Amino acid sequence: MLTKNVKQMVEDQAVAAKKAAKVLGMLTTEEKNDVLLTLADALEDRYQDILNANEVDLENGRKNGFEEAFMDRLALSKERVYDFAKGLREVAQLKDPVGDVLSDWTLENGLHVSEVRVPLGVIGMIYEARPNVTVDATGLALKSGNAIILKGGSSAISSNKAIVDVMHEALEKTIIPKEAVQFIESTDRAATEALFTMKEHVDVLIPRGGGALINAVVNNATVPVLETGVGNCHLYVDADADVQKALAILVNAKTDRPAVCNAAETLLVHQKWFEQHKQELIRTLNEHNIGVHGDETVVEAIPGAMLATETDWAEEYLSLDIAIKVVSDENEAIDHIDQYGTKHSEAIITENKQTAQKFMSLVDAAAVYHNASTRFTDGGALGFGAEIGISTQKLHARGPMGLPALTTIKYLMSGNGQIR
Amino acid sequence: MLTKNVKQMVEDQAVAAKKAAKVLGMLTTEEKNDVLLTLADALEDRYQDILNANEVDLENGRKNGFEEAFMDRLALSKERVYDFAKGLREVAQLKDPVGDVLSDWTLENGLHVSEVRVPLGVIGMIYEARPNVTVDATGLALKSGNAIILKGGSSAISSNKAIVDVMHEALEKTIIPKEAVQFIESTDRAATEALFTMKEHVDVLIPRGGGALINAVVNNATVPVLETGVGNCHLYVDADADVQKALAILVNAKTDRPAVCNAAETLLVHQKWFEQHKQELIRTLNEHNIGVHGDETVVEAIPGAMLATETDWAEEYLSLDIAIKVVSDENEAIDHIDQYGTKHSEAIITENKQTAQKFMSLVDAAAVYHNASTRFTDGGALGFGAEIGISTQKLHARGPMGLPALTTIKYLMSGNGQIR
Repeated sequence: MLTKNVKQMVEDQAVAAKKAAKVLGMLTTEEKNDVLLTLADALEDRYQDILNANEVDLENGRKNGFEEAFMDRLALSKERVYDFAKGLREVAQLKDPVGDVLSDWTLENGLHVSEVRVPLGVIGMIYEARPNVTVDATGLALKSGNAIILKGGSSAISSNKAIVDVMHEALEKTIIPKEAVQFIESTDRAATEALFTMKEHVDVLIPRGGGALINAVVNNATVPVLETGVGNCHLYVDADADVQKALAILVNAKTDRPAVCNAAETLLVHQKWFEQHKQELIRTLNEHNIGVHGDETVVEAIPGAMLATETDWAEEYLSLDIAIKVVSDENEAIDHIDQYGTKHSEAIITENKQTAQKFMSLVDAAAVYHNASTRFTDGGALGFGAEIGISTQKLHARGPMGLPALTTIKYLMSGNGQIR
Repeated sequence: MLTKNVKQMVEDQAVAAKKAAKVLGMLTTEEKNDVLLTLADALEDRYQDILNANEVDLENGRKNGFEEAFMDRLALSKERVYDFAKGLREVAQLKDPVGDVLSDWTLENGLHVSEVRVPLGVIGMIYEARPNVTVDATGLALKSGNAIILKGGSSAISSNKAIVDVMHEALEKTIIPKEAVQFIESTDRAATEALFTMKEHVDVLIPRGGGALINAVVNNATVPVLETGVGNCHLYVDADADVQKALAILVNAKTDRPAVCNAAETLLVHQKWFEQHKQELIRTLNEHNIGVHGDETVVEAIPGAMLATETDWAEEYLSLDIAIKVVSDENEAIDHIDQYGTKHSEAIITENKQTAQKFMSLVDAAAVYHNASTRFTDGGALGFGAEIGISTQKLHARGPMGLPALTTIKYLMSGNGQIR
């Protein structure tokens, strides 16, 4: 009975969001930007309320004995809240994709056809600990003319609720109805599951978080999903790799921010290169405290290396650990990536252009690098501005998703009585 | 045990298709076109074998007492087989989207980024009676560099198998391995269901057929789906509609080809227009033998009209029947379309530009028409060339899907040691 009520409540919110989306789809870019700036000001003005609410989440987190890294993602500060506001102001600067005419032409019979970008409608955002997603996703959704339903993790419920309260109060002074931003307060799992099948009212679900969350959404949702984030990224160091480039890219891709999805998780090394340069490789791994899990060749050659299991090849470490496999050539590297990669970011280090081209053609991933770190797969780094996530799927959007990923197209046909 | 074998067999086929897809992704446009022309010649050369196989399906159909319209879709002739070949030659003429550079730029650090179109990989095509899909889908898949797994309806199994045999034999003389075209011979439902969850090997499923087939795929597949086809299309005749245009468009949209997805299924009429023009409307409906199901106003005004039920508003007739509802204004029409439309094609007939603009902005569909028949939602009519289906979803592709819908993008990054 409780479950049924939760489902009904979520449906009511989705219906309200859909109605608000109609208003949003008709607004000009300027009107939407004004709203984003109003929200930014409100967050700064009321940062203390948000910090107070965050303290409740932190207190609960301490009681529950959450890990330090998790607590760090959860913790807000005046500076972090101001960064949220800055993020919204940056989204206001981004080009509005809505209304773009992608193509238009006139048929011989005079029927005029125009393909225009329009908002998707209602976005369901399902995410975990970090409260910044509440603001970032709202900003990107509103700018692209979409309503949003926010379903954050229960560990950040108090912070998220405070942030949404501030945004709702601010929206009341704007042209956008506050119903355009829906926040699901229930931490009942049924609330999330209700979103999975609400095809009539929700146009897309975007899960952001760990692999378990993403798989739960992908496997159970009938609403279309934009799959984001899991990055089991590989570096392949070819026989013809420059040693300095290879080691610098390894260090950057593995240690710059080990917990992010574009960090490297497996190093594939051509056997010749490995034979010639293993001493430099070992020194570099040691200097940067990188823990090694490897195949038998690696375990024999690298002191302290543990024998890798299937899990080491298949999963992200998101830590200073790396799996290392010695391969006989680029074909074996490509096959390994085919088997274990998550179609996120893959790199080859080589001075051989032909080998590089082959690798870039045959590896199936959102981003394939030649002689550069996988860390560049990021909306900010590539100049897209803010991103709603990094797509690891092939349909609709691939790689860092900016505002256009939150739109669809519509054919507008104007005639004077044309029949076929 | 049988079920398990079927699943394993389908998986083996999918793995072979994935391997063949790697070869396909590397071919030039010319190489692919040559293959299509070879297939076209082979189909013409061996049309008699195909007709013989078709006779088996027709005989079974007669035994099973299939309807005439169904038998007509199933029946092949020399002319129809030659049309398949013609279709392949037309696909050879289409622009190859693979390799198109959609954008490219260089970051300040010198990293060169290029966004290129690449094939999706392996397409799973699940379809019903018409054997032409076997050829059309294969042609579009190969041209766009994709392997294809064909799962046709059991009523056409003999025809489809003969067509695939001809294509396989022809492929053996070409650069494309015959494994690029997989045909699932089993009519066990488990074979289709195996495709639903084969995410590792199949990149997209495209169901083509009736609503039941499409819903089964959408609701059960974890492989991404390109949803096609169900068109519960509306004509809204506004208070300011021109009588001649309205009636001509009604007749065309309803009667030109009633069984196709872009045919009109419901007529929404502004009450003023209905009051003024109902006699002309009745005459037109009678002249074209259109069966009327209507609301109470309609039933009172139109002799022989039956009272419409929920099903009349919600489902396609695909026949010379139409549902008619009298509405008080365009808002009621838009709300009705929101509730019952399938986001395919919707039209407004009016001389009032403001009302037209409002309708076109607020109606959420792949194609929205002003003063024209919904029948133009078609790849051929719009000048896209052959289409793989008409998407009624919002992600990836919307409306008629040509070759670009069978591709994704990939970011290729070339550097000389860039790290972040």
